[in-house]
Amino acid sequence: MTSTTGASHPLDQAVQLFAKSKGVYHGHTSAEYGNMVGPFGGATAAAVMQALLQHPDRLGEPLSLSLNFAGPIQTGSYVITTQIIRTNRSTQHWLILLTQDAETAVSATAICAVRRPSWSSAEAVFPQVPAADQLERTSPVDWAAWTHRYDMRFVTEIAAISDQTGEGRANSLSQLWMRDEPPRALDFISLTALCDAFYPRIFLRQAKQVPAGTVSMMIVFHADAAALALQGEKSVLGVAQALHFGLSFFDQAAQIWGSHGILLASSHQVVYFKA
Amino acid sequence: MTSTTGASHPLDQAVQLFAKSKGVYHGHTSAEYGNMVGPFGGATAAAVMQALLQHPDRLGEPLSLSLNFAGPIQTGSYVITTQIIRTNRSTQHWLILLTQDAETAVSATAICAVRRPSWSSAEAVFPQVPAADQLERTSPVDWAAWTHRYDMRFVTEIAAISDQTGEGRANSLSQLWMRDEPPRALDFISLTALCDAFYPRIFLRQAKQVPAGTVSMMIVFHADAAALALQGEKSVLGVAQALHFGLSFFDQAAQIWGSHGILLASSHQVVYFKA
Repeated sequence: MTSTTGASHPLDQAVQLFAKSKGVYHGHTSAEYGNMVGPFGGATAAAVMQALLQHPDRLGEPLSLSLNFAGPIQTGSYVITTQIIRTNRSTQHWLILLTQDAETAVSATAICAVRRPSWSSAEAVFPQVPAADQLERTSPVDWAAWTHRYDMRFVTEIAAISDQTGEGRANSLSQLWMRDEPPRALDFISLTALCDAFYPRIFLRQAKQVPAGTVSMMIVFHADAAALALQGEKSVLGVAQALHFGLSFFDQAAQIWGSHGILLASSHQVVYFKA
Repeated sequence: MTSTTGASHPLDQAVQLFAKSKGVYHGHTSAEYGNMVGPFGGATAAAVMQALLQHPDRLGEPLSLSLNFAGPIQTGSYVITTQIIRTNRSTQHWLILLTQDAETAVSATAICAVRRPSWSSAEAVFPQVPAADQLERTSPVDWAAWTHRYDMRFVTEIAAISDQTGEGRANSLSQLWMRDEPPRALDFISLTALCDAFYPRIFLRQAKQVPAGTVSMMIVFHADAAALALQGEKSVLGVAQALHFGLSFFDQAAQIWGSHGILLASSHQVVYFKA
């Protein structure tokens, strides 16, 4: 087994994979990206992305990643198995499974594409928000180690999650500047993790922690590696809101904007909750 | 092989599957749901949903369906293979592949869940639109047989797709009432198809047809079977808009609303285009 990443930043350490054979990678959860139970889902998603990026037969760049969190991930090692479903002229379809003790914890499909120049237009509008350096950094929370690994600056007030007596907000919209802590140049690894770096929307509506966990998530990448490189270590703006809560699940639509007002990624997820 | 559906409505005929062995189904494309090239993607998605619904070991109801259109589907027969990735106490994770001549044309993951009553809230707002019967039915188009299988009534003007000289619209928002034609009671099969029944957003922006095709799509079901049954044969309101076009792909966020203003499903897709 050979190390296939440099692994200096905590995120790179968290997603460090060792190629056991072609397309089969061994990884390990990172205490630095721990959540209430098990690892931060964004770090797990980033490890899946890492497996895709490291595969020698990959064609093009990530276009979309769809992840299903099938079961809890235990602290310790895991295996990521990648399989090419189909390779076309300019797109490639992947199936990726993360297993522990031969049980699947994450199933994922991904599409890579050779992105060619085209007509372009942004319909989504970059929101009017203060610059990151005009906002206070929000304190990480003790109950989720991974929050210490991000510099988060909320534009919209974050509900007092730790205050069990507060009133819930009327809507679940969050707008926040965020970046890795310590700073790290943006790439598909960190962008994937950032897409899951939003507190569960139900926390905001209920103004308290309730049991909640992402079960499925789709990310669409609007930017290519060159555009991500331009972002560097600067904060991205995350925007997230739920459309509907009911029958023990809610959805979340999110956008990640670059500092220059360019849409880098959008995501859609469905989350279990008990309330 | 035994027929496992009643197959009276054209949609039921289009998604009729024959169980070859447990979890392996044979189906056939339907000329009634033909598209410019190959079948309408919504009918293909509905066939995948049909395989899930027919499986004897399914737990609960569909919560989400993520589909990747890996390659063109030829007119003719196909095989759908279903595999349970993991069954938990109240959720079940599936991998579903649609193949033709042993090549994968569609890869999909799905999650079923035993939906339990919970706190509920809708943040998405049902738009102010005229009732379906106050609008004219939009004519189906000759170049896509499947459009004859829907009664569509556009609230926002549809761009003159057949008029190559028109100006493109400033945004890609569509709002339309739609239902199966002939009418058919709503269920997970028809709702799945409806989630893909939007013209490619690029057509609206360019006011013409250009090469375009969905490559990945995620559907979240907000309603259970009981709520869908209440909808009956009435039209649902579809709302769709792209956030971003660029590097040969655009996304589309869509919502399907019941006639009583209840959000039934939301979907997110990424679409290839050449323009």
